Amino acid sequence: MTRQGPLDLSLLPDGGVRWLDASGPNADIVISTRLRLARNLVGYAFTGRARDGERLRMLAQVKEALAHVPILDGSVLLRLDESAQLDRQLLHERHLVSKELAGLDPQHPLRTGAAVFLGEQVGVLVNEEDHLRLQAMRSGFDVPAAFAMASRMDRELGERVPFAFHKEFGFLTACPTNVGTGLRASVLIHLPGLVLTKEIGKVLAGLQQMGLTYRGLYGEGSEVVGNFFQLSNQTTLGRSEEELQDLLVRVVRHVIEREEEARRVLVRDAGYIIEDKLWRAYGTLRFARSLSFEEAMNFLSGVRLGVGLKLIPGLSVYTLNKLLIFAQSAHLAHLEGRALTDSESNLARARYVRQVLATEGSGVE
Amino acid sequence: MTRQGPLDLSLLPDGGVRWLDASGPNADIVISTRLRLARNLVGYAFTGRARDGERLRMLAQVKEALAHVPILDGSVLLRLDESAQLDRQLLHERHLVSKELAGLDPQHPLRTGAAVFLGEQVGVLVNEEDHLRLQAMRSGFDVPAAFAMASRMDRELGERVPFAFHKEFGFLTACPTNVGTGLRASVLIHLPGLVLTKEIGKVLAGLQQMGLTYRGLYGEGSEVVGNFFQLSNQTTLGRSEEELQDLLVRVVRHVIEREEEARRVLVRDAGYIIEDKLWRAYGTLRFARSLSFEEAMNFLSGVRLGVGLKLIPGLSVYTLNKLLIFAQSAHLAHLEGRALTDSESNLARARYVRQVLATEGSGVE
Repeated sequence: MTRQGPLDLSLLPDGGVRWLDASGPNADIVISTRLRLARNLVGYAFTGRARDGERLRMLAQVKEALAHVPILDGSVLLRLDESAQLDRQLLHERHLVSKELAGLDPQHPLRTGAAVFLGEQVGVLVNEEDHLRLQAMRSGFDVPAAFAMASRMDRELGERVPFAFHKEFGFLTACPTNVGTGLRASVLIHLPGLVLTKEIGKVLAGLQQMGLTYRGLYGEGSEVVGNFFQLSNQTTLGRSEEELQDLLVRVVRHVIEREEEARRVLVRDAGYIIEDKLWRAYGTLRFARSLSFEEAMNFLSGVRLGVGLKLIPGLSVYTLNKLLIFAQSAHLAHLEGRALTDSESNLARARYVRQVLATEGSGVE
Repeated sequence: MTRQGPLDLSLLPDGGVRWLDASGPNADIVISTRLRLARNLVGYAFTGRARDGERLRMLAQVKEALAHVPILDGSVLLRLDESAQLDRQLLHERHLVSKELAGLDPQHPLRTGAAVFLGEQVGVLVNEEDHLRLQAMRSGFDVPAAFAMASRMDRELGERVPFAFHKEFGFLTACPTNVGTGLRASVLIHLPGLVLTKEIGKVLAGLQQMGLTYRGLYGEGSEVVGNFFQLSNQTTLGRSEEELQDLLVRVVRHVIEREEEARRVLVRDAGYIIEDKLWRAYGTLRFARSLSFEEAMNFLSGVRLGVGLKLIPGLSVYTLNKLLIFAQSAHLAHLEGRALTDSESNLARARYVRQVLATEGSGVE
């Protein structure tokens, strides 16, 4: 059932890209929905306090159990603690593991026993802040589907291993903000309309009042680039899974409507100025010889808005999603087969973006 | 021999574009060479002091004489005083008539009798500041060829009409700076390398010390845009035609060498940064939906440098020269068949540039 070898993401059940395929609802605005459940096993100290041997025993127990869990049939085990840094960065850039699990967060060095089981649009992160993080990802805005998959993982795995549970508090977790359902639902959403109309500040303040929080492309502490935001629930304690989902769905639906309204206003009030701006972004991506990550994200944001507004025809949202992920440094290093300096990375990024746009958007005019 | 009708520049002997065809020496740096001789006819007051009837009689005498001048065989007479403003602008943008003759200079309203005879790379401007301005234009850097043509015009026409000549001062002209040979030689030159390396100030100061002067794309008082400069001799009095030509040739050759050196330095010290900058200029021109004239000239300057450095393959200098001239407002209005507001002009400019680059540079990658 599980296997181990050199990192080749194409060997994953869904290639690790299914969540990018733009097949889900509202895919022009919401790139993906992710749902994770934090779980800990009875009988082991929390990851941060456990010793190496304890974490390895826990991993072995989970591995044994997962052999009998249908939803993870065919999943691949990747041992992060035995992986090269570039491979761990690659997994993180692909949104398959957290920065902490990948040992890329200076405050949390790579832990012995850090591992991930990756199946079709699902994953089990082992020895993260909690023993287990059951994670489901879906294309577009689709909380119910992501929740259904995560719940099934939770149920099937919970029949095989004992999760730490307190009848009053619910599931026990290393950090109090996760106690209860251990559920965090998030969407990766593109809000260029609200940024351009300068409405974004108000919208984000409103989110926080509703108990949601926002982050950049790479989760906690990461900067917002290219107008891509991750919106998620802030705490889980004292609320049911249904309440948490309902809240996220309601608020995100509202944000999508505000974004759509902002786009209508832009087209109405600044039609050809916007059109020109978005086409210039396309022209720069199409021909630049050097692109920093931030620049690429900003131009990509413009092109994505152009495609969403049907001003730029002939380009698919899937192509743009791929660029969003594959134009990152570790992906480029992987493509080139070697570590790259920053300026080499900028050259490789421009080359990659040009090739993809020339191939997959050859009719764009 | 001469004819008159609605303005259709394609009816001109060389279509009014031969000087743009990039066939001359150093055509990647020097767009064109222009040589003009100021002449006045005996028996008439200078244009600025003459009455309408006098100017018309002078025009009639010149027209009569030109019928017997071989080098102007097949030339077309255009009466500026009977032309619409847009047509006069078109001729000025095409560099076929001066701003003053076209009545576009607020200090010199359109004069009765203002006219031009246009032949193959030669023209006779009538009732400009002087009665006649004999003008020859050549592609690239080619002072001898331009001088040969202007001299032949001077000789052939001088046999038919009496030019005002003083044995001590030489040819008499309305403005003292032209007295003597009445010769002004100028080159339209592209100096992006010297601008980018910030050497341009020194070079221009040196020019002035040598008795040359510089202007923008449209002669006296016009701003420098897109790193295009017109270099010409400042005065003619007290120097022979040969001395004036030698001076211009020597100085311009030196400027060309400095420009080439600057380009080598740029490629050596900032290779991929320059390459990226020039390709971004291309990408913007290739896809923008609105372009002001100044922006278009600046991006075109970048692309021209890229072509000169052989960094951007598949584009001809002729295509770039055409864009330089045809992307101007009156040309765009002519193309669209109606007067355009500034913002309509910007849209039409972007559309025209896109079409030309898509058609004539389809292999650019």
